[in-house]
Amino acid sequence: MARILVLNPNSSEKVTDSIRRSVAGLAATTSHQLVFERLPEAPLGIESDADVAAVGPMVRARALTGDADAVVVACFSDPGVDDTRAAVTEIPVIGVAEAGYYAALQFGRRFGVVSLGPASIARHALRIEGLGITARLAGDRSADLTVEQSGDEGLSRERVIETGKTLADRDGADVIVLGCAGMGNQRPFLQQAIGLPVIDPVQAGVAAAISALNLDYIAKA
Amino acid sequence: MARILVLNPNSSEKVTDSIRRSVAGLAATTSHQLVFERLPEAPLGIESDADVAAVGPMVRARALTGDADAVVVACFSDPGVDDTRAAVTEIPVIGVAEAGYYAALQFGRRFGVVSLGPASIARHALRIEGLGITARLAGDRSADLTVEQSGDEGLSRERVIETGKTLADRDGADVIVLGCAGMGNQRPFLQQAIGLPVIDPVQAGVAAAISALNLDYIAKA
Repeated sequence: MARILVLNPNSSEKVTDSIRRSVAGLAATTSHQLVFERLPEAPLGIESDADVAAVGPMVRARALTGDADAVVVACFSDPGVDDTRAAVTEIPVIGVAEAGYYAALQFGRRFGVVSLGPASIARHALRIEGLGITARLAGDRSADLTVEQSGDEGLSRERVIETGKTLADRDGADVIVLGCAGMGNQRPFLQQAIGLPVIDPVQAGVAAAISALNLDYIAKA
Repeated sequence: MARILVLNPNSSEKVTDSIRRSVAGLAATTSHQLVFERLPEAPLGIESDADVAAVGPMVRARALTGDADAVVVACFSDPGVDDTRAAVTEIPVIGVAEAGYYAALQFGRRFGVVSLGPASIARHALRIEGLGITARLAGDRSADLTVEQSGDEGLSRERVIETGKTLADRDGADVIVLGCAGMGNQRPFLQQAIGLPVIDPVQAGVAAAISALNLDYIAKA
């Protein structure tokens, strides 16, 4: 049995709990152990480029302690993921945005992203461009939710569904990625409402870690 | 428990057995049932564009019989996959080349493909271009093996390792995709020899089907 560290790179216990709940089904079907942690020194939410830059080294430092067989960084800005991967080469290091996009490629032709607010859209575009998959992006639209509002399930559900419908109807998306690690509770409702596959990035990231361990994808000579 | 049809789109029982062996580990860890079939009316091997064109409608017809909860088409030319997906929208239809490429995106920056012979390289390039991921391709090189020679484990192992090394050293690949559904037996040896993740497309395809079922990615309104 291997140990998968699912790291919430902010300091919120509430967000950590929501992340734990979103992968409860995967945890029940894998033989690997999922361990959930937050970064106590990090901000409560990761909202700006400055937040992303600040937590990156904390993510790398945590991964370097070496007690995990795989690390999933559970924030849709993939903070510190590339640096951590360069520093910790002997285990899989997975960013949930990256994993969410690849899952979307598998289950649709063109993906749409539901973002919390407009500020994150430019950051997502850079990441998608860096991954070389812009050709498959249908659109990225803001649900116009603050982090606080996103905790209000009723309000956020309505806005997320409305945004998903716009991505499908106007942008031609045939698969939707939830652009935040804390939106997993909206997945079944959105999928049901629009009849398209909806990817929760945290689930996609943990599924990628499980595959990497089951199939032994990291092997050094 | 759902039923995953792993379809060998040629008529060879030997290839079907090799496909079954390559996913034995995944079969042992999933609660879903894997069912292996070949297409009795298809050629013994799928080697030319004409072969790919001929078996496509047979793949679609088999998938349309409707007794599976997911279909994995286990040939690296993805014969009939796009047409079948358009015709059978209520279950996941997965081509192993496509799934192999997406797995490679997750575990490396630039992927190399080990092909059996030069004729398949142009076909792969078209598929990779159609998927919009050419920016991530490091190279596609032939191991110069006929289908018959590929059954000779010693000979094919040496050529596959040599080709993988060239993809890493000359083309800058940091992850390798085996460009044939029947090369799975070479995966551990190549991974060990070059110290990079090696993707068996059949394993990647079945893993994608398992994820799709576990996470309920196909849901019609």
